[in-house]
Amino acid sequence: MGGNIINNPLKLKQFLARFSLKSGRKILVHGGGNIASETCIKMGIEPEMVDGRRITNRDALDVMTMVYGGLINKDIVAQLQQLGCNALGLSGADGNSIEAKIRPKYPIDFGWVGDISHINTELINHLLNAQITPVFCAISHDVQGQLLNTNADNVASAIAIALCEQYETELLYTFDRAGVLTDTRDAKSAQKSLSQSDYKSLRVHGKIQGGMLPKLETAFHALENGVNQVSIGKTLLTN
Amino acid sequence: MGGNIINNPLKLKQFLARFSLKSGRKILVHGGGNIASETCIKMGIEPEMVDGRRITNRDALDVMTMVYGGLINKDIVAQLQQLGCNALGLSGADGNSIEAKIRPKYPIDFGWVGDISHINTELINHLLNAQITPVFCAISHDVQGQLLNTNADNVASAIAIALCEQYETELLYTFDRAGVLTDTRDAKSAQKSLSQSDYKSLRVHGKIQGGMLPKLETAFHALENGVNQVSIGKTLLTN
Repeated sequence: MGGNIINNPLKLKQFLARFSLKSGRKILVHGGGNIASETCIKMGIEPEMVDGRRITNRDALDVMTMVYGGLINKDIVAQLQQLGCNALGLSGADGNSIEAKIRPKYPIDFGWVGDISHINTELINHLLNAQITPVFCAISHDVQGQLLNTNADNVASAIAIALCEQYETELLYTFDRAGVLTDTRDAKSAQKSLSQSDYKSLRVHGKIQGGMLPKLETAFHALENGVNQVSIGKTLLTN
Repeated sequence: MGGNIINNPLKLKQFLARFSLKSGRKILVHGGGNIASETCIKMGIEPEMVDGRRITNRDALDVMTMVYGGLINKDIVAQLQQLGCNALGLSGADGNSIEAKIRPKYPIDFGWVGDISHINTELINHLLNAQITPVFCAISHDVQGQLLNTNADNVASAIAIALCEQYETELLYTFDRAGVLTDTRDAKSAQKSLSQSDYKSLRVHGKIQGGMLPKLETAFHALENGVNQVSIGKTLLTN
């Protein structure tokens, strides 16, 4: 679930109601939305940028841990509990569920950012077997006591890939748009399905840009690595 | 673990090292410390007081959820993981572990404060059986989507009481003092053991005051309700 859904309490409520009705074993991974940036502003913490890219310094990591791991994660869990879905919130440190390595400091030092190295499928299975729905925020750890900021799309993809040996696995990226659009101003341009070659062609012609590019890379990576079905909104990805 | 240990990173590290070495099944419940108040100040949130007592209004609850459920809980979990203790952090909403009822609004409306009504021993047992160490922050929920601020001493006591039918249970309140002192300026006045009648007599003579009174009430309540051993620091409570 993308951060822009979290920014809208009504959309969040609607999404969680749909999610709670989904049958089968399920896992929710959520992004952060604007609340972390707003909290930084309220606390007088300036965003640190290098080459136009945001750096996760110590203060930023603390705010992310508070907002993603605390405020947002617990609010989602409480709402799902109300809906009868037995949710349990996790960061990657909890139960050693997501191990990561700090991103190499060259050529750009992004600060306390982690790239996932291992998903603890044993723990996740243990929770799923107990009819518990894990709700992950996008924070991992290095098993040396350090929490790390991790991209939510990558967390979702890594968990789906780790589980696809054992399960028929569906990975769904939900956000505030209908799907992959070829014209961002027109919701009707949402693609019904998209193959890798379609994607490459659209990208070359500048029809897909910005944050959708890494999302699609991550999504196709999951499809190539055994995840049975991958969708971005209503757009089904195909090989 | 009391909040004043959290205020001191070195004391926290030392406590967690001792905790991780403790044998047997174990659960950690932590307080909040100063970080929530400091975060409120940084965010320009004024503490709301009625009759000299702090009120948990919406903003205060959000900050507690961020700081206790996010920052502190995840930091403790990451440190325990580094120490080889398979910790998993929880609020009362997670896995519906701690149900509470909002405190009646008369005679004083304390805001979003919850009094514990049910501990989910099935979930706790499930985690303990998987060699997981639950780490609770003092936030509960009402199963109607609402998180509630709850006293950490009460959370620890309620969990110990809930588990004592099944387990030989020891409840230990750790904080920054040696134990129950009869002279708060003299660490040597820490009592080795304390019976309820000793306590009542010391209280009448003004030798025990302030925050120690509700802590002792909660601790004796646990002892009366089947918990096998209850200690406050090095002071062992006796019937």
